[in-house]
Amino acid sequence: MARWQPGTPERLQQVALELFATRGFEQTTATEIAQAVGLTERTFFRHFNDKREVLFYGQDVFTQAFLDGIAAAPPAASPIEVVGAALESAASLFPDERRAHSRTRQSVIEKNPALQERESHKLAGLATTIADALRARGVDDLAATLAAESGTTVFGIAFTQWIRDGEQRSLADICAKVLQELLSLTTKANASRSGK
Amino acid sequence: MARWQPGTPERLQQVALELFATRGFEQTTATEIAQAVGLTERTFFRHFNDKREVLFYGQDVFTQAFLDGIAAAPPAASPIEVVGAALESAASLFPDERRAHSRTRQSVIEKNPALQERESHKLAGLATTIADALRARGVDDLAATLAAESGTTVFGIAFTQWIRDGEQRSLADICAKVLQELLSLTTKANASRSGK
Repeated sequence: MARWQPGTPERLQQVALELFATRGFEQTTATEIAQAVGLTERTFFRHFNDKREVLFYGQDVFTQAFLDGIAAAPPAASPIEVVGAALESAASLFPDERRAHSRTRQSVIEKNPALQERESHKLAGLATTIADALRARGVDDLAATLAAESGTTVFGIAFTQWIRDGEQRSLADICAKVLQELLSLTTKANASRSGK
Repeated sequence: MARWQPGTPERLQQVALELFATRGFEQTTATEIAQAVGLTERTFFRHFNDKREVLFYGQDVFTQAFLDGIAAAPPAASPIEVVGAALESAASLFPDERRAHSRTRQSVIEKNPALQERESHKLAGLATTIADALRARGVDDLAATLAAESGTTVFGIAFTQWIRDGEQRSLADICAKVLQELLSLTTKANASRSGK
């Protein structure tokens, strides 16, 4: 039972990412990933249903970080302010030392349409979870959906910026800037509309 | 060559949708779809790479409708106003008589995670195309991405509402209402921020 120590999925994920990045996702088998950390294929499949899932390990922690930020927002906060708190909380999962890991993961996903599809779908699921949490705070249905979708959009754009070569700002700073740009964009549209 | 008349893909799509909805997507083969309209499997594969693609036929026309709306927007329109024009143009592809078809298609997609992943990914691709068109109008990079993502979000939410049982409003009307709600939501956030 010594193999069931905590950290096995993390070790499998780390080595899988290295193998995917150097040899290619298609060319790497679950057996090879397991063997690279001295484990059997069977142990691999105790932790992951397939090798795609290795790239999405940690999704629950990621989703929970958004939910924690929402729970910590003041009761009087507007839906967009609640989303801002969720973004700040989620961004804290990605300190600077994780940037290289995230960059490698994204480069693997970008080379494989099936992985891109799964990534898009997981982000869609995150938006649904955030919208549910906003509804539970009393935000009406449409506003909750829009605020949640806007939040995942802002996160996705900020994340893409964060992993660009040469980018130095923290993910939290970039999230705040992108959210502010969204507010500014829609305020301009409203001002121009009322000026008609 | 008589089989190459215009309309073959549309006929294949229509019958495929009926078969997917009644028998299930997994249980229907490309051969069965082709035979149901009196064609061979080989003809099917001249039009579609696989049976999943049948559900996404017409994607180019859909994307082009957004681009046509953008091209027709006045030069001075704000990015969000341009997106509003794109939504109105795209909504015109979905008159009331198409509602039942769209509803059936969505029910097939919702039952199959792989189809959901492809749908999410196609919408992500649409957002990229819209953002490129906004950049070509001189909208800066971040604003273009945000406006494009917001546009596809609004379309997705409005579309889901449009195909709900009992919904009577046109897709264009629902798109306009959802976009207005997004503007109102972000304006409130800005007002509350400046009041701090």
